[in-house]
Amino acid sequence: MLKSLFDEQKLSPVNSNFRFGGGERKNDEWGGLSFHNKEHDISVPRVEKKAGVSAKQGSDCSLAFKKPQCVRQQDRQEQQQGSGSKEGMAGHQCGSVLVTGANRGIGLELVKRFLGKPNPPKTVFATCRDPEGARGQELKSLTSKHPNLKILQLETTDPASVEAAAKKAEAHLGGSGLNLLINNAGIMPPCTLESATSKDMLDVYNTNLVGPMLVSKAFLPLLKKAAHASQQKGMSCGRAAIINMSTILGSIEKTPESYFFIPVVSYRCSKTALNMLTKCQSMGYKEEGILCTAVHPGWVKTELGSDQADLTVEESVNGIMNVLCNLSEKQHGVLVTWEGKVLPW
Amino acid sequence: MLKSLFDEQKLSPVNSNFRFGGGERKNDEWGGLSFHNKEHDISVPRVEKKAGVSAKQGSDCSLAFKKPQCVRQQDRQEQQQGSGSKEGMAGHQCGSVLVTGANRGIGLELVKRFLGKPNPPKTVFATCRDPEGARGQELKSLTSKHPNLKILQLETTDPASVEAAAKKAEAHLGGSGLNLLINNAGIMPPCTLESATSKDMLDVYNTNLVGPMLVSKAFLPLLKKAAHASQQKGMSCGRAAIINMSTILGSIEKTPESYFFIPVVSYRCSKTALNMLTKCQSMGYKEEGILCTAVHPGWVKTELGSDQADLTVEESVNGIMNVLCNLSEKQHGVLVTWEGKVLPW
Repeated sequence: MLKSLFDEQKLSPVNSNFRFGGGERKNDEWGGLSFHNKEHDISVPRVEKKAGVSAKQGSDCSLAFKKPQCVRQQDRQEQQQGSGSKEGMAGHQCGSVLVTGANRGIGLELVKRFLGKPNPPKTVFATCRDPEGARGQELKSLTSKHPNLKILQLETTDPASVEAAAKKAEAHLGGSGLNLLINNAGIMPPCTLESATSKDMLDVYNTNLVGPMLVSKAFLPLLKKAAHASQQKGMSCGRAAIINMSTILGSIEKTPESYFFIPVVSYRCSKTALNMLTKCQSMGYKEEGILCTAVHPGWVKTELGSDQADLTVEESVNGIMNVLCNLSEKQHGVLVTWEGKVLPW
Repeated sequence: MLKSLFDEQKLSPVNSNFRFGGGERKNDEWGGLSFHNKEHDISVPRVEKKAGVSAKQGSDCSLAFKKPQCVRQQDRQEQQQGSGSKEGMAGHQCGSVLVTGANRGIGLELVKRFLGKPNPPKTVFATCRDPEGARGQELKSLTSKHPNLKILQLETTDPASVEAAAKKAEAHLGGSGLNLLINNAGIMPPCTLESATSKDMLDVYNTNLVGPMLVSKAFLPLLKKAAHASQQKGMSCGRAAIINMSTILGSIEKTPESYFFIPVVSYRCSKTALNMLTKCQSMGYKEEGILCTAVHPGWVKTELGSDQADLTVEESVNGIMNVLCNLSEKQHGVLVTWEGKVLPW
């Protein structure tokens, strides 16, 4: 899919000097972006590149993932050994988490990580459109090992489906709230200014903006319940949070760096709107103590990101898990990268 | 409409300290915003407050409209005398302009100003959904005095209607291009995080984002023709330009200043997306020499802005006409206020 975009733009991601994230990329470029508000950055120390993470041939990618402040000794050892399955979120006990679009890519990897934690959530809700279909089987196979995994059918753009899933989750939680909602489901079809149609724009907006809006609204009572029941005072993913999976491609300020490489106009517009929704949620839900943050996962080798992307799913989710662990009110209403750096709008 | 929002938020725009644009507003606040890129600001000297412009009772509003650099002596005299009908755009001869949503509010006033210029465009296209209906009569009445006014039926969200209007415009222009496209049509229904529905979000996105996208796309060949035929080298509204009517409410950065006063979540998300579309257009159409800029018209006493707004339509359009006159490549892909100041995304 992306290949066709590259061809259309007469640019090859391999032959071009362009690197996702800007110009001739330096090793530390993702960390060296001109962030407009450094006070929001999560200041966690960098550790050496993880063993077993192979840089893409010909790429100057050097993912330096971060050691979470709240990581346990056991996790730290595993990180350094390259197991990469249990880092992050260890300090904050998260009672329950829900991930949309959880049957593949980043969503599936997030579910695996939560399930693999030494102190996993009591319930991990994993939602997808068709859990019984062929594309739901990898997710489904996890249930045999993890009784705390609860798969929910959810079409995020269908209000009835969203309401039904929220009722099932409420029943399953038996009086407890939902601590962490990760709006991960999204689509990125090819779309240029020339090719864009009304249907393209509306379909992508429906999935990438309306879906997260409906899901957040439906699960809000459970998030409020978790926030109020928590003994924590500050904001965190362990207490109550909405994480909207956004992208640097939704940053208007950063658009010139990537536009000709990957125009995806419908996707960009929808994700910029998702950033605004995140800001609105951060305003509306602040009093409730619900953390609202948008996260850029990097350019990841998924069905959406293509196999030409910089990061493996594991590398991206390493970073995201660490970021989630460290989020606080400082990142409320902010767009952060999988490395915890704030991006400009 | 807005009144109900104020009531819902238990805030009165009169009794509250809040002023649209932020906190306890100073006289120069609109000019004193923390702009992130001052180099884009249009540096035109301020002139004294125009005679005949009455500040709202109890308001600290002090609109200091700007004297355009390219204004003629005749216009300047008329400005100072308070006629306010011919300022701006006098320096750049603009052969043709098209304004959507031109039957009322800012759109109608823009059409009147273009028609009233000492050197008016050869053709002023004014579009609205129902020119024959009751709400099209004020616009229609202008045709008797202005043979250069051409009214086109246009439903901006209907691809067939947009294509038909573009064909009519092309035929009317007889080989000439279109210099200036102003995507003004928009809606702002009440919408909070609590009340938002799927339909609300999609309808508003359709009008405020998809409409401008379709219209820009359909009129692009005419804009290109104008850009190529122009003897001007730089970018300007006199050569070829797409102006997207946006709003400070679409600025994610500025959201905390106004959110509780006027949440309008569907509107904010759609206008943030429109800002991204403007940036994408600025990238895609740069080589063609087509200027692409988003404009915040201020909070204006229109059907959309309510009678509680700060500015009269005349005051806002005074500013917009001056801004249009002064736009250049410096404001390409930027969001500027009706006073020519750059707003952060």
